[in-house]
Formats: sequence, C-alpha cells, structure tokens
Amino acid sequence: MTNIQDKKLWGGRFAESTAPLVEQFNASVGFDQRLAEQDIRGSLAHVEMLGASAILTPEEVTQIVDGLHVILADIRAGNFEWRLDREDVHMNVEAALRDRIGPVAGKLHTARSRNDQVAVDFRLFTKEAALTLAQLTRELRRVMVSEAEKHLGGADGQPVILPGYTHLQVAQPILLSHWFMAYAAMLERDEGRFRDAAERMDESPLGSSALAGTPWPIDRHAVAAALGFARPTANSLDGVGSRDFALEFLSACSILMAHLSRLSEETVLYSTFEFGFLTLPDSHTTGSSIMPQKKNPDVSELARGKAGRVFGNLMGLLTVVKGTPLAYNKDLQEDKEGVFDSFDTCSVVLRLYAEMLPRSVWHAETTLRAAGRGYSTATDLADHLARSGVPFREAHEVVGGLVGTASRSGRQLWELTDQEMRDAHPLLSAGVAAALTVEASVAGRQSYGGTAPERVREAIDAAKAGLAE
Amino acid sequence: MTNIQDKKLWGGRFAESTAPLVEQFNASVGFDQRLAEQDIRGSLAHVEMLGASAILTPEEVTQIVDGLHVILADIRAGNFEWRLDREDVHMNVEAALRDRIGPVAGKLHTARSRNDQVAVDFRLFTKEAALTLAQLTRELRRVMVSEAEKHLGGADGQPVILPGYTHLQVAQPILLSHWFMAYAAMLERDEGRFRDAAERMDESPLGSSALAGTPWPIDRHAVAAALGFARPTANSLDGVGSRDFALEFLSACSILMAHLSRLSEETVLYSTFEFGFLTLPDSHTTGSSIMPQKKNPDVSELARGKAGRVFGNLMGLLTVVKGTPLAYNKDLQEDKEGVFDSFDTCSVVLRLYAEMLPRSVWHAETTLRAAGRGYSTATDLADHLARSGVPFREAHEVVGGLVGTASRSGRQLWELTDQEMRDAHPLLSAGVAAALTVEASVAGRQSYGGTAPERVREAIDAAKAGLAE
Amino acid sequence: MTNIQDKKLWGGRFAESTAPLVEQFNASVGFDQRLAEQDIRGSLAHVEMLGASAILTPEEVTQIVDGLHVILADIRAGNFEWRLDREDVHMNVEAALRDRIGPVAGKLHTARSRNDQVAVDFRLFTKEAALTLAQLTRELRRVMVSEAEKHLGGADGQPVILPGYTHLQVAQPILLSHWFMAYAAMLERDEGRFRDAAERMDESPLGSSALAGTPWPIDRHAVAAALGFARPTANSLDGVGSRDFALEFLSACSILMAHLSRLSEETVLYSTFEFGFLTLPDSHTTGSSIMPQKKNPDVSELARGKAGRVFGNLMGLLTVVKGTPLAYNKDLQEDKEGVFDSFDTCSVVLRLYAEMLPRSVWHAETTLRAAGRGYSTATDLADHLARSGVPFREAHEVVGGLVGTASRSGRQLWELTDQEMRDAHPLLSAGVAAALTVEASVAGRQSYGGTAPERVREAIDAAKAGLAE
Amino acid sequence: MTNIQDKKLWGGRFAESTAPLVEQFNASVGFDQRLAEQDIRGSLAHVEMLGASAILTPEEVTQIVDGLHVILADIRAGNFEWRLDREDVHMNVEAALRDRIGPVAGKLHTARSRNDQVAVDFRLFTKEAALTLAQLTRELRRVMVSEAEKHLGGADGQPVILPGYTHLQVAQPILLSHWFMAYAAMLERDEGRFRDAAERMDESPLGSSALAGTPWPIDRHAVAAALGFARPTANSLDGVGSRDFALEFLSACSILMAHLSRLSEETVLYSTFEFGFLTLPDSHTTGSSIMPQKKNPDVSELARGKAGRVFGNLMGLLTVVKGTPLAYNKDLQEDKEGVFDSFDTCSVVLRLYAEMLPRSVWHAETTLRAAGRGYSTATDLADHLARSGVPFREAHEVVGGLVGTASRSGRQLWELTDQEMRDAHPLLSAGVAAALTVEASVAGRQSYGGTAPERVREAIDAAKAGLAE
Repeated sequence: MTNIQDKKLWGGRFAESTAPLVEQFNASVGFDQRLAEQDIRGSLAHVEMLGASAILTPEEVTQIVDGLHVILADIRAGNFEWRLDREDVHMNVEAALRDRIGPVAGKLHTARSRNDQVAVDFRLFTKEAALTLAQLTRELRRVMVSEAEKHLGGADGQPVILPGYTHLQVAQPILLSHWFMAYAAMLERDEGRFRDAAERMDESPLGSSALAGTPWPIDRHAVAAALGFARPTANSLDGVGSRDFALEFLSACSILMAHLSRLSEETVLYSTFEFGFLTLPDSHTTGSSIMPQKKNPDVSELARGKAGRVFGNLMGLLTVVKGTPLAYNKDLQEDKEGVFDSFDTCSVVLRLYAEMLPRSVWHAETTLRAAGRGYSTATDLADHLARSGVPFREAHEVVGGLVGTASRSGRQLWELTDQEMRDAHPLLSAGVAAALTVEASVAGRQSYGGTAPERVREAIDAAKAGLAE
Repeated sequence: MTNIQDKKLWGGRFAESTAPLVEQFNASVGFDQRLAEQDIRGSLAHVEMLGASAILTPEEVTQIVDGLHVILADIRAGNFEWRLDREDVHMNVEAALRDRIGPVAGKLHTARSRNDQVAVDFRLFTKEAALTLAQLTRELRRVMVSEAEKHLGGADGQPVILPGYTHLQVAQPILLSHWFMAYAAMLERDEGRFRDAAERMDESPLGSSALAGTPWPIDRHAVAAALGFARPTANSLDGVGSRDFALEFLSACSILMAHLSRLSEETVLYSTFEFGFLTLPDSHTTGSSIMPQKKNPDVSELARGKAGRVFGNLMGLLTVVKGTPLAYNKDLQEDKEGVFDSFDTCSVVLRLYAEMLPRSVWHAETTLRAAGRGYSTATDLADHLARSGVPFREAHEVVGGLVGTASRSGRQLWELTDQEMRDAHPLLSAGVAAALTVEASVAGRQSYGGTAPERVREAIDAAKAGLAE
Repeated sequence: MTNIQDKKLWGGRFAESTAPLVEQFNASVGFDQRLAEQDIRGSLAHVEMLGASAILTPEEVTQIVDGLHVILADIRAGNFEWRLDREDVHMNVEAALRDRIGPVAGKLHTARSRNDQVAVDFRLFTKEAALTLAQLTRELRRVMVSEAEKHLGGADGQPVILPGYTHLQVAQPILLSHWFMAYAAMLERDEGRFRDAAERMDESPLGSSALAGTPWPIDRHAVAAALGFARPTANSLDGVGSRDFALEFLSACSILMAHLSRLSEETVLYSTFEFGFLTLPDSHTTGSSIMPQKKNPDVSELARGKAGRVFGNLMGLLTVVKGTPLAYNKDLQEDKEGVFDSFDTCSVVLRLYAEMLPRSVWHAETTLRAAGRGYSTATDLADHLARSGVPFREAHEVVGGLVGTASRSGRQLWELTDQEMRDAHPLLSAGVAAALTVEASVAGRQSYGGTAPERVREAIDAAKAGLAE
Repeated sequence: MTNIQDKKLWGGRFAESTAPLVEQFNASVGFDQRLAEQDIRGSLAHVEMLGASAILTPEEVTQIVDGLHVILADIRAGNFEWRLDREDVHMNVEAALRDRIGPVAGKLHTARSRNDQVAVDFRLFTKEAALTLAQLTRELRRVMVSEAEKHLGGADGQPVILPGYTHLQVAQPILLSHWFMAYAAMLERDEGRFRDAAERMDESPLGSSALAGTPWPIDRHAVAAALGFARPTANSLDGVGSRDFALEFLSACSILMAHLSRLSEETVLYSTFEFGFLTLPDSHTTGSSIMPQKKNPDVSELARGKAGRVFGNLMGLLTVVKGTPLAYNKDLQEDKEGVFDSFDTCSVVLRLYAEMLPRSVWHAETTLRAAGRGYSTATDLADHLARSGVPFREAHEVVGGLVGTASRSGRQLWELTDQEMRDAHPLLSAGVAAALTVEASVAGRQSYGGTAPERVREAIDAAKAGLAE
C-alpha cells in the first residue's frame, strides 16, 4: 500500500513518478471513502492509546484528536474534498490532518501501517453490517410472524388456506400462515449466520502493523476495547492478511438472498393473473410505458435478480483470495466493493419486503379454490385406506387409479360414483371421498411442525416469544 | 419424487410408461446410494416410532427392522445389487425389503414421504460431514501448532527466521513459527464455522411428510432423539424445502479451501529452486515422465486447484436454489453431489497436509539469508528515528532515500558510509544501521500478536491449551 | 505429471515411496479413462509419425500399433483392467502395452511428454463434444421450428394464441409459434458459439512435449492432420499450458443452460393447474410416492437445476486457471471432470427436450382465454389514439385511467360504457374498444420480427431454409 | 419498466404513489446514464425512421431531432441534470426533451417501448465494448510480439534465456521471447472471442416494441442500418428478452482475465528478490507507508485480483438469467453494471500491461543462471540415450538415478565423475553430460512451435504479418 503527501511519501527511493493510469487504477478513494467514519474512529482510538502509552505527548494527542474531529465533522457535512491523487481514504484523512495541524500529523501513523489500518476499518464496517443485517432479518421475521398471525383467523375465524406445492403442482392444502412461518424459519437461521459471523470477526487487527507487529510499546487490548471489539487478533500475519470474515459475511448474504429469491419467485407467481392469490400494493409495484394495464412486481423481480449480484460478489472475493501468499497483497483491495454492495442490496431488499408484505392483499377465496384443485386431498384418501390396514404402497396405487379415472373425465374425486369407488377397493365408497374436504385435510395434519391450525398457532407463539427476548 | 415397485407405484394414473432417457436422467441411485446408511438409520428410527405410537404392530415392526438390518449388512458387505430402474437409494432399499419380507414392507412408508426421507438422510450426512471436517481441521491445527513449537528453538536455541512478505516482496523478518500460527488461527475459525453449521442444522425434518405434516399420530421428537438430532424442524414446508444447511456447509468448505489454497501457494513457492526454503518429502511429491530431475509439489498444486472445484460446488447449489418456489422441487436433487465432493475434497486435503508438513524440511540458513534481503529492517530504522521525535512520515522519507542510495549501489543499509547516513539525517550514523540485524528486528516486535519469540511462545501455549480442552 | 511402471519410473531419484493417500489423491484414472479412445488415437498418430520420420523402425511401429489396437479393442469390449496404481489413462495404456509387447513399448513415449499427451487427448474430446452439442442444439432447434409450424394453423386454420408476458404479467397476445421461434433464435446462437469454440480449439498440441518442444525431428503437421486437426499449435508453452478452449466450451454450455433453464421455467409454469396451458407427456413426467394425483414436470425441473451444475463447472475451472504460472501445473488436472459433466448434462437435456416437446399438448382455448386477460390489448387502444395524433405519452395516460376504472369494477375494457370512454377522451367510444380483440391485436403486429402470422410464417420458412443447408 | 413525467405516466391506474424506497430501489439512472449516447443515437435513428415512414411529420421530426442534439450536447458538456425521480436514462432524456420542446416529445416513443429501447442501447454499448477490447487485446499482443523480438537477440546476438517451469519447478530452458509469444497466442484467441461475440450480437432489437412487435408501419432494417447493425433481430420476444450477448461478452472478459491473471502471477514472481528476473518500472510500482524499501508490483497484483471481480460479474448475470420466463423481467435490469465494470476492468488492465512491459527490465544473467538450475537439461541426456536405442522409459530411469546422485551430493550433472556416469549406463560418460549446456538445450528444440531461436523467429514473423493485416 502506498501513501501520498502531495508528492508521495513512499516515493523516497523512486526515481520516476507514477504513471497517471496507474494512479487511477490503484486509487481506491472512490469507494473506500465509505470507510471514513471507521477510519477516523480507528485513528482516534490509536492516538489516544499512543498518548496513554507515553509514545506521544498529551499535547500531540490533543492536536491530532481535535484535528480528526474537525475532519469528521467536515466529512459528515459533505464539506470534505476527496482527492484521487491522495489515493485512498487513509491518505486523504491523514493529508487533510497535516494540512490542518502541520507535521505533527505524521505522528499519528506511529506504530501503525496501512495494512492494519485498512484491516481494522474494514472489520469495523463488516461487523456493523453483519449486525445490521441480523437486525433487519429479525425485523422481516417479525413481519412474517405478524402476517402469519393475521391470516390465521379472520373475523369469521377461518384461516386462509393456500395450495401447498411440490414441483409447482398442487400437492396438499396448507395454511397461508404456515407458509409465512416457513420463511420465518429460514430468516431465523439467516439471522444466526450473521450473528455468528459478527462474533467470529469481533477482533481488532490494529497493532499488527505491516505484518509482524511493532516494537513500540502499544496496548492492543485497550485499542480493541475502545473500538468495541471483544479482543485483539492473536497473530499479526493473520490480522493483516485474512479476509475470511468478509467471505463469511458474503456467504451469509448469499444464503439470505437465496431465500429472498424464493420468496420473490412466489410473490411474482402469486400475483399473476393465472394464480391470482395476491395483490401487491400500488406503492410497491410499477406500471408500463406502453401497456397501461400492467402492474409489475418490480420489487420482487429485482430482488430475485439481485441474488445474482450477491452470489457474484461472493465468487469474486473467493477468487481474489484463492492462491495468494501471506500476508498482504494488493489483490485484497478488491475485498470492499462486494461487501458494500452486498450489504446495501440485502438491506434494501429486507426493508422493502418488510414494507410490502403487510400492505399486500391475499385473496382467500381464490387460494381456497386453488387448494382444492388437483385432487390435493388424495393423500388423505390413501391415509384412510392405510389406517384400515391396507399397506401404504397398495393404498397409494388404489388412489392413483381413482385419480386417473377422475382426471380423464374432468371430475373431482368426490364426483366419482359409488360403483367406481367400490370397484377400486372394497373399503371405499363415494361417502368416504366426499368427506375429504380441504379444510379437513388441513385440520388433520396435527404432527409437530404440521399445518394444522393448532400447530401453526403454537409455532407463532413460540416465534413471538423468541422475538420478544 | 417418484417411487417404483418394479412397475412404478406412482404409475397408477399414468397411461404411458416412462421414456428410457427420462428414467436415466431422473435416477439418482448412482450417487445417492452413498446415503444408504443414513437412509436405513432413518427408516429404523421411523419404524420403531411407528411401533411405539401403535401405528404398526410389534410384529410388523420386528419384521421390518430385521429386514432392514439384513439389507444394511448386505450393503456393508458389498452384496447389495443397486438397480437403476429403482431410481434412488430409498426405492432400492424399500424394494429390497419387499423382496425379502413381502407386502408388509409397504407399511414402512406410512406417515412418511420421500421428501422428508431424503431431507433427513441428507441432513444426517451433512451434519456428520461438518463435524468430521471440524475434527480434521482441528487435527491440522494441532500439526501447525506442533510445527510452530518445533521451529521455535532448535538445539542451538535459535528459532527459524523467515522473510515476512507483503506483495511477495520481502517486508520484515518473522519467525517461521509465527507463520505456522497464522494458519493455525485461520483453521481455528474454519473449525468454528463447521461447528456452527452443524449446530444450526441439527434438526430432524422426518415427519414433515410431503410438505404439510401428517395426520398420523407420530412422535417427531422421539425420532429426532433416536437419530441424534437436537430437535425436530419446526415447520414442515421448511423441513422438506430448505437447503441452507447444505449451502452453509459448502460456504465453510469454500472458505477453508481458500485458506488451504494460500498455504498451497506458499508451499509451492517455498519449495522452488528460487526460494529454496522448503524440501517436501519424497512420499508427498512426484516426478516427471520426461524430466527426471523434477520433484513436483503435486499435493499442494492439486489442493490449490481443488479450491476451484469446491467454489464451483457452492456456486452450483446457490444457483439451484435461486428462484425456486416452495416446497420441494426436483431441482433439489442436484444438492448432493456437490456436498459429497466437497466433503471428500476437504477431507483428503486436510489429511494430506497433516501428513506432509511434519515430514517437510525447512532450510533455516536459506530463510535467514532471505529474511535479510530487501532492506527488510528499514522499518526498524524509521522507528528508531521516530522514537527520537521525528514524525513518522518524515522518518519514513529519510529511510526511503537511504534505501534508494543503497539499492542503486547494490549495498545493504549497514554498508552505507557514515557520511551517507549523516547526510540523510543528523540523528543517524553507520553505527545505528549496523545494529539493525534480522534477529534484533524479530526480537523487538513485542506487541501482542507480534513475531517476537516470547509472543509466539505465548500464542503456542494458548493454542495448546485450547486444543487440549 | 508422473508415470508408473508398477514401480514408478520417475521414482529413480526418490528415496521414499509415495504415501498411499497421495497416490489416491493424484490418481486421475477414475475419470480420465474416459479419454482412452482419444489417448490411443493420439498414440497411433504419434507412433506412425515416428516411423515416417525414421525415429522408430517399421518393426517397432508395427509392434506398437498392433498392441495399441488390441488394447483399444479390450477397452471397447470392457475387458481392460484399469489400475489405480497406474495413476492415469496414459500410464494404464502404456503399461498394458509393455505387458503385451515388452520394452519396445517404452519407445512410444519418444519425443512426447504427458503434458502434450493429455493436452491432445483433452482437446480431441472437447472439440468433439463441442461439435456434438452444436448438432444436438441444431436438432432441438429443428424441433422448435417444427412445433412453431404445427401450431401456426390447425384444421380450422387458426393459430394457437398465447399470452405474451413481461414481468410474468400478461402483456400482449402472441402466437405460440412466435414463442417457439424465440427459443429457436437462442439455440441458433448457441450452436454458433459451439462451432466457434470448436474452430478456435482446432489445433494439435502434440509435439509441444513437456513445454519447450523437442529436439527429435518430428512432423507435427502430419500428426495434426492425422488426428483431424486444422493445424498444430504455434507455441509449445501455450500448447501444454492453456485451457481457454475448455473455458470457452464451458461458457457456451453455461449460456445454453441459461436458455434451457428459461424454457424449463416456462414449461413448469405452463403445466401448472393455475396456468393450464400445457400437458406434458406421461412418458416424460413422474408421479409422487405419497400424492397419487401428482404429475410432476421432473425433466424441466431437473434441467433447470442442472444449470447450476454447469455454471459451477465454469466457475470451478476459471478459479483453477486463475493465477497459475506457465506452463503446466498439476492444478490443471482439475480441468476434465467439469467438461465431461457439462457435456453429459447439456447432451441429455437437449435430447430430452427434443423428445418431450413434440409429445406435449397445448390447450389452445385456455391460452386464448388467458391471452385476453389483463387488458392485454390496451396498448392497441393507446396506439389507436396515437394514430389520431394524440402524443403517445398522453394516449398512454388516457388508457391507463380506463384500465384503472375497468379493473376496479371487475370489467373488461370493452364492457366500459360509452360515457366512461368519452369521459376519458373525446376520440374514444365503446365501439372503439369493442374492436380490440386478441386476434386483431396479434394480426396487427406486422413489423419485421413481430408476432403477426405472416411474419411468423416468414421466420419459420427462413429457419427451415437455414436448417436444410 | 416504468416511466415518469414528474408524476409518473404509467401511474394512470395507480391509486397510491410509489414508496420512496421503491423509487430508489428501482431507479437505474445512477448507472444507466452511461448509456446516454447510445440512447440518443437510438432515438435519433428511430425518429428519423418514423419521419421517413410518414408516422411523424417532418416538423415533428425536426423538433425532436434538434431537441435531442441539444440534450446530447448538454450531457457531453456535463450540464445535464440527472434526476433520480426520473428513474432511468430513457425517462431522463425524454422528460428533458419534453421540458424543452413540449408535448410533441411524447411522439418520440411511438412504436417503441422501453423494453426494446434499453435492449438497443445496451447492445450498442456491448458491441462497441467488445470491439474496443478486441482492439486493446490486439495492442497488447503487438507489445508481446515486440518484446519477443527485442529479447531474441541483443547487441551480442544472444537471446535471453529463461527457465521454463512446470509445477513451478525449473523444467527446461526456454527463450524469454518464447514466453512472450505464449501470451501473444492466448491474446490472439481472446481477440477472436471478442470479435465473434461482436458479430453474433450485431443485430438491432429496436422495433420489437414491448415484446410482440408493433402495428405501426416501421422500417426496422433502416433503423438497424442507421445504427450500424448488420441486421435487425428476427424475433421480437428474443429481441427484448435475451441477454446471451452480454453473457458471451462477460465470458470472453473472464477468459481474458484468467490469462492476464497468469501473466500477473508470473510478473509478481519474477520481480521478487528470490527470482530476481525482472525489474518493473518505478512508474508502475508503488512503495510502502511503513517499509521504505518496498517496491510493490501493485499493477500486477491488482490485475490478478480483478480477475475475481470479472468472474463474479459473469456468475452474477448467469444467475440473473437462470430460470426467468420470457420475455422481459425486471431482473434483467441487473445486466448492465457487470458489463460496464468488466469492460472498464479489462480495458485498464490491457492498457497498463501495454505500458508496463516495454519499460520493464529483464536480468538476462540471472535468468540464464536460473535456467541451468535443477538439472534442467536432464531430459536432453535422456534423449541422448534414447537416440542410442535405449527405450525412452529406460533412459528416463537411468537419468533419474543420476539426478538423485547429484542432488544428494549438491552437484550438477556435469560434476558427476566418469565412474558414476558409466555405472549408471555403459553408454554414458562425464563427457556426455558436460556437453549439455543450457544454450545447446534451447537451440536443439527445433520442432514446430518449439523454443529454438529459429522457430521463435518464425513465430514472431508470422505474428507480425498477422498484426499488419
């Protein structure tokens, strides 16, 4: 890593100046200025420790601290001039400090290298990003649970019934609330992944210096504590050279986006004319420039597509790290943009779903009708036979034949004649089939984790208790 | 998912038989037979619960259990005929059971679907795989710590010194032991990721049935306990339809392989003629068919390459899951091969490094000489100036100029004349530079996590204590 | 790369034997035996050239050629014993040759290395794979065009009309034939990519030897011609060390699979109960073990999922190649499995769609009804206004308002009252809207490439002419 | 896709306004403003065709054309205010046009949709990007060939000799010029891929309208010609919905970056102290903020790392396209940033290498010395034995033993005693080995594509002829 003092400081031994295209290629300030807050927090913790350790005088510390606060205020106010020729966020801040307080600014970098400086900035950012996404994931889970509860029983006490699909073929009726709780379960694990990642990366690399530690009598534990880290990293090479914390963060983001892409796919499907289950709010859909009738589920589509972006960020950083020797290599400069982008993407998608779902309208009559299609209670008929002692595999075959008969003549199972039923199996009759309603099917699935209303009620209560903790 | 009873059972309503190419395309027995043990363990737990819940009679349970044990023995002995026309591991086992005990075999599938059956098989496998890799990661860490200790002080009490690199340019001298401990730190986090993943997936989906639960009065907690799971999954749609446990496993594998690819790169580099730091054992290298002098670091190269394979498996499964609606889709059949392959790959690479590193020989004189190249103690000189009150940035510039002077005339810093030193800065002299030996540089880096021998000794002791737990 | 002669030949300078786990790790014969035909073809071309160049005697050539033919026959008959301890396909064949004809077998490897040997084998395979997939892509395109023609006009002369979607919302009616021709267009470009790749890789690396060429007076052009290559590679380092031909092949496979995953998604959607457009043949669907009514589009789902596998193979090999120095590294052994797997996957999916589509039944009444939903001809109304001089943007807004009115009261556009129409714009009346039928909308889209029957007829004719070439 | 007329035009039927976060999420103007030139070129071609087809009056055309030119000038001058609330580049330009020329601006969108508008803009960009990268690839190839020629013979007529590596072990000596020509060969194929991609995508989708074509009597061939496309796309669904052109572009970029990452790896290695082959120019390296002696190969490192970024972009877009139904989905908005970023990345890396390589200095004495290490001419000795009739495999074993002997005693082959040589094989003597110099080894490899100076000279001449075309 390099530094610049209008003429570059590291240029001491260089006879030739940097080519303009190289300067532009190497410069990271275009994206790493996003780490400005973290950079200054890191510098403040560092310089205060240098003072406490008698490496700098109290006056020097005060000068530097005051200068950094002014710069931070400028940055927050949008009054800071970021300069490409000062290469990165670190040199921009340090050079601005020197402009303001003079050569004493150069003492800030005592016992520090840009290698550990960028490592601590980026860890601060990524840890906070992981905790933020954990929280946003939790908020969306809260919405899922709330929606589950809302649809468990309306004014008439009837829960909304949805077709349950496998292979996108109607399989068995389920409660809409059960469907919401499935996503709540996924999001709970997503939150866990972000929290585990945050905990594992909760270490301050500052003080690793370039790669080997420093001879200055610094206090890394104090700096770690000041920055809110649980501890300092235990090995300086690892501290400046490892990026598994970013990879783990990107993995958690990718898995989250995989889940949200499934939710998006279902949202898109359910709001088609053909399914007709769901009306998304005007506030979260868009129209067409040429087809005035369109109401497009843009949020869901874009969320689905953005899974690709986040997967790509993960693959990109895995490739970057692959095969690089210890400790720091410039390749690692490529670590940041993918993390920033993935954080932004996950954040906005989580927030948008938390906004959109409660304003969406489910069409209970349509979903109920759909849930009854496709002989979706045929399994219940097979279970009925099996409970009478017919081996399940045989029962399955009997019911399969009846479905074929019904399907070929465009009827429901309960429209088959008594004769047809008895021909299929002596234990059957038209009466048996007639009892197999969608509501009865749902109510019967009482196994733990099943879709019966009592089970879903219990699951919601457990989730609410968990969220209240 | 489908089943087969020589003629396929689900064929009841089908007028036309399956096309041969479809049969071959759909069949998974070629790879999922690897789940045979898990499948039978799952079936045993399930059928015993069916007995305890009075869904099956004790006689039925006994017949099925005995039959399954015989089949398991056959499989273990290699006497089981896997049939492609029986599609997958589940139908192969069930059909073999029917061949052996007759139609009562059909009762095994009561209150179960292939959706939850494959989900439980695959979770059993993946959880065990994660725990195995956690253990193998730990074993390799133990080797790293042991190597670190071994090289901390030889007969003469001198630790092996290695050049520390940034940008693959010699930066500062470090201890070889410090380098080993950097990898130990990475592996410790890798182990943590596998353990976290194992814990998060420690739930039995059995009893989720096809997707909605079952009306049979089953006891999912008992089944979960019998299979060694911490608990059953709490939502049946999620239980059959989620694969984030596999994605998290593949992410942990990918990050591990990223680390091992870095180790591999360094092993390859250090065993070149040009570096000459390391001789790998004959037992773990190979020769050339045309160049008799070659001694190739195949293990490291192949390990480095195999990172790509594991990354590809992760990317593949992320893509598979992306955009699929709930609950089960046939796409998910694609989940297994990548997990099997990643497990095998990580296992063998971890074991090979645990074998190879202790048999490798480090050339301490060569590494020491290399560590002194490139003005690697120049930072120490800058630190010396800074300690005399020169702002670090100014000190840096002074030393940079001296390095340029030395470099242009092919000398080391300590070969500069007193005049040259004083010209650079009044606080300098030839005597100052002469004191900057590689050994002194290492000894001085006393900050926590630094490369000074005492610090590394402490790190080793802490690691050994952790490993002994 | 290494070789083995029961005891390994490269073992000459090795004091210690290879560790068993290393032997297993390095061995590639488990998968590269698939290159046996290519390997023997390469050896035959090589040895005949050695004879023609007077490097070997005619007797030696005859002995070797005859021996290779016997081995090839054994392999084809399944009578060849592949041995793991002989590491790879090359050493298995060569050792078998030595077993059969004695030490003269050792002369086959004159002026050759395993580096160029595996490169030529793998290029032969990949080029043939690319050409095969080009042909299979063409066959599926033929099916698409044939289906397009079939649905262009039935007994009644009416083409099948399908809703055209954007955002999966019904947008404008189109011809089913137009939809088929869209996929034909994609497949045509896919074929082009495979052919371009085959042409670019049409070079023989044999004779590059280990990496630098050989002092033997060989004739590389003759070998290239004998193997059906257009030319030899022009640089020996590039010949043994480059794998962009495999990367380009995998890219073409990935793009093809992206297209087929879209076709699969639509096939799955259109065969749901909710869409109801399409009935897939029994021969290409499967049932459920627990839900007898299910008819699952497994082929499409699995094809969609297998896109992930192929993308993963591409990502894997890109990672393998990334950052490896020239010329050959063992990492490159990882190049084959992904190519084999991608070839097999693409082949079977292409063949399955070519089988399945012609046996599938489209429900023209359902698709027609669906095409009229969602105010799909509203754009035509806007175009009507625009043709009367209303700026398009204004026309759009007028029609948008009318759609809102109709939508809120559950009516079609043509059910709006004359008053409502005139209120919206003085140029409108109920009569105008009533004329906007689905059929008229389709018939009107006469622009080149549009969905009007004449345009689609022309596109089909052009495609047929292209396919007949 | 949506449009905006301060209040959104598609808002006609929408009762509720768009949520602010949705507006921000959907807006693409932050990145697609990069398509402004293409967008206006497309609009100009479209409106002139509308005039020629008598759809608009000459006055309307003039008004619109003049307005567009003014806007284009504003954009070029940086005087255009991009507004987020106008969502994308298209609506920004159109709204600015309306601000300037009033409601007639609304006629520009006649017979066009944003679906075909963005498709044509993006194709124009991507085609130009592909052709630009083809040209830059060619320029770098020219540099490679020029460097090859430069190092083929200096003042003393001696070519620079480099160790040729396999497994990063010195294998055989090669010419540095041969190494340059290997990269030239890769780059030639890279150029071919970009040109093939450009040709395949050379089709104008404009006139496909939303997805089905348009009833307006437009002339798509005229528009295609005006925009420099070879032809219009032949199917409107395909025209608006396909993105394989972008995928093919990203594949070509990825393969190029794989090649450049190999070059980068070698550049980094060769400029280490340990290799010492190469000094990179000060203008293209940087220093360290803490280690004044460092001269870091940042350009190469960053180029190597940026391979990950480009691979990630490819994987991202593959994922986006996977499983989306026809024709346009909002997911596709994700197609652009990866293409822009990959284009920029490849461009700058190609340009930097073209700058850096000619200013780099190779140390011929060092490379020559290195080329002789590692018994690199042992193969020549084996070839010597083989030419005397010893089967190659036997010769290999003999030489392998000699290498072992020499290696164990730290000698070169030519330092072995006559007795040791004769003991190994009666045809050998110390004299034989002594003749095996590095220079003789290189000179001997006369096979086509080999490293002998005559062969490399021919390759350079052929390449220069190709580049002069």
